Amino acid sequence: MDIEDWRQKIDEVDEQVVLLLNQRASAALEIGKLKKQAGRPIYEPGREGVVFEKIRKANRGPLQGDQLEQIYHRIIDVMRTLQRNDS
Amino acid sequence: MDIEDWRQKIDEVDEQVVLLLNQRASAALEIGKLKKQAGRPIYEPGREGVVFEKIRKANRGPLQGDQLEQIYHRIIDVMRTLQRNDS
Repeated sequence: MDIEDWRQKIDEVDEQVVLLLNQRASAALEIGKLKKQAGRPIYEPGREGVVFEKIRKANRGPLQGDQLEQIYHRIIDVMRTLQRNDS
Repeated sequence: MDIEDWRQKIDEVDEQVVLLLNQRASAALEIGKLKKQAGRPIYEPGREGVVFEKIRKANRGPLQGDQLEQIYHRIIDVMRTLQRNDS
C-alpha cells in the first residue's frame, strides 16, 4: 500500500470516529440534562478517572496510554463545554 | 434512561473509538515510514486541511464543526509525535 492508500484508510476511520464522537456528544447532552434536573454538577472528576482507566484498559496500541489520555482530555473538555452551553 | 445507562452507552462508544484511533495510528505509522523512505516531511499542512474539511463534511452534529476540529487538532498532534518517535 502506498501513502494514498493509507490516507484513504484514515479517511474511512475518521468518518466512523466523527459518527461515534457525535453519539458520545448526544449521550453527554442527555447526562447534562439529567444532572441539571438533579442539581448535580457537570464536572465530576471521579467519573473522568473512570473513563481514563477504561480507555487504558481497552488500549491494544500502537498508541501509548498517555497519548490516548491526551486525546481524551480534549474530547472530555469539548463534551463539557457542549453540556454547559446546552440550554 | 438514567445517568448510569447513558454512561454505559458512552463506555461502549469509547471502546470503539479507542480501537479506531489505534487503527488510525497504525496507518499513520505506515505513512511515516513511506515518507522517510521518500524523504518527504512528516508535517504536510495541506493534508491537515483536507482532513479538517472531510470531518466537517461528515459531521451531522450535535458537535459543532469547530468542536470537532479542536478534537482533531489533538488527534493529529498525537499522531505526528507517534510518527516522529518511530525508529
